[in-house]
Amino acid sequence: MRVAVYFLSDGTALTAAALGRSLLTQFQGIDFELHTFPFIDTPEKARSWIDEHIAPRGSDEIRPLVLYTLADPKIAEIISAAPVLDLNIFGSFIGALERHLGRPSSPRIGQSYGIAQSEDYERRIAAIHFTLDHDDGLQSEDYAHADLILAGVSRTGKTPTSLYLAMQFGLCVANYPFTEEDFSRGRLPGVLRQNAGKTVGLTTTPERLQALRANRHDSAGYSGLRRCTYELGEADALMRGAGIAVFDSTEFSIEEISARILVRFGYRGK
Amino acid sequence: MRVAVYFLSDGTALTAAALGRSLLTQFQGIDFELHTFPFIDTPEKARSWIDEHIAPRGSDEIRPLVLYTLADPKIAEIISAAPVLDLNIFGSFIGALERHLGRPSSPRIGQSYGIAQSEDYERRIAAIHFTLDHDDGLQSEDYAHADLILAGVSRTGKTPTSLYLAMQFGLCVANYPFTEEDFSRGRLPGVLRQNAGKTVGLTTTPERLQALRANRHDSAGYSGLRRCTYELGEADALMRGAGIAVFDSTEFSIEEISARILVRFGYRGK
Repeated sequence: MRVAVYFLSDGTALTAAALGRSLLTQFQGIDFELHTFPFIDTPEKARSWIDEHIAPRGSDEIRPLVLYTLADPKIAEIISAAPVLDLNIFGSFIGALERHLGRPSSPRIGQSYGIAQSEDYERRIAAIHFTLDHDDGLQSEDYAHADLILAGVSRTGKTPTSLYLAMQFGLCVANYPFTEEDFSRGRLPGVLRQNAGKTVGLTTTPERLQALRANRHDSAGYSGLRRCTYELGEADALMRGAGIAVFDSTEFSIEEISARILVRFGYRGK
Repeated sequence: MRVAVYFLSDGTALTAAALGRSLLTQFQGIDFELHTFPFIDTPEKARSWIDEHIAPRGSDEIRPLVLYTLADPKIAEIISAAPVLDLNIFGSFIGALERHLGRPSSPRIGQSYGIAQSEDYERRIAAIHFTLDHDDGLQSEDYAHADLILAGVSRTGKTPTSLYLAMQFGLCVANYPFTEEDFSRGRLPGVLRQNAGKTVGLTTTPERLQALRANRHDSAGYSGLRRCTYELGEADALMRGAGIAVFDSTEFSIEEISARILVRFGYRGK
């Protein structure tokens, strides 16, 4: 069974697409064909979008799904009049919110992610640059200014996770790769000991680490299973000895690991 | 007016938080106090969450809002029985989807973002590494392998936008900073000319560029208004001369610029 699905918005359509993907994972065995259309922000655009994308689908066995966030009810009405399964995300909640809050909403188109020059946004961009400047052990003398430090051996997901935390939550995240020098010293480097309260470890299984390293590098020994087992064991011992929480990234995406790290630190959004 | 808002999920709660923030932007003049709780994935966790966070709010003037994505209807029922404004995201759409698709949903907890080891996920991680390895003009001999190339003078948002496109859409994005050498040569460097079909320009206003540069650097002349005006003008001429689309990042967030770039290239998600 094949079903066309459209995520539509007057803004970036990120919210509609994220929610839509979540909902569709609850239905197995259907071949969903996904399309995303941002910036449908006038009645004219909505009408020509229907003419171009929905009208030719008249012969589909199952009518297309359209899941949308549209602040302007006039544009939403145009979509809902089309021959589709109409999933109006804002429309489903705005009424209840208006009644509960005792005031009408004021439609603001495409505001989902705020304004590029807001303070919050500047903070996110600054966090991305901080995180890049403190990737892979760079500028570790600065760790006092980091919100979080991710530690682990090479290829445990430190860099993507750091960047995600910076981009999504505006956190300044440094990351530190353990090396043979740390292992032979037998204790955490000073820069981590001094910042242990905001340091988090990442680990994985030796088999997974070997696979990840083999994909990317070829240098002799680096991706051997014995080498991976040794490094993970040493890093684990160093971190646990210092009371640092260690998260296993084997089964989890960077979004999931990030959410778990934030729970651990009691971060609740703002 | 102050209202407590909770975003809750059995997974990362990213979808609930993104949708919730969009909805709340439609209500001005209310002081929303936002909290995010991921991984509420058992009835026990839901009950103790209510005891800890909702029960003590009995005296709030306005009952708290709880906006949630919970795949398991049994957990959702526990939340909806609490003294809150119950905004059940999945519950609002699953019924209509089941009827339309003619089959029941099979609740899958915390699957919103898929499994860490899926092919799609591996692609995103590889894209992040590609993007980092090709940041700021690095390895430009590789541009044939990039999905997109962002070009522009320093501090027009190339790096954060590239990383966002890699992280969110799994695209391998290189970025190229124009330098005096390019301007004096008076035409695009060969690596961009050979890949003009997938190159996009980023620009901003001289005033904005000056402010961005002043924040980050201090080297003489680099952030002068005259210098910024000159560089932006030269870069613009080079790119427009080669038929490259140029996007102005002054008023837009990286999410918005990214969505606009993808529209231009006809990218519709997959």
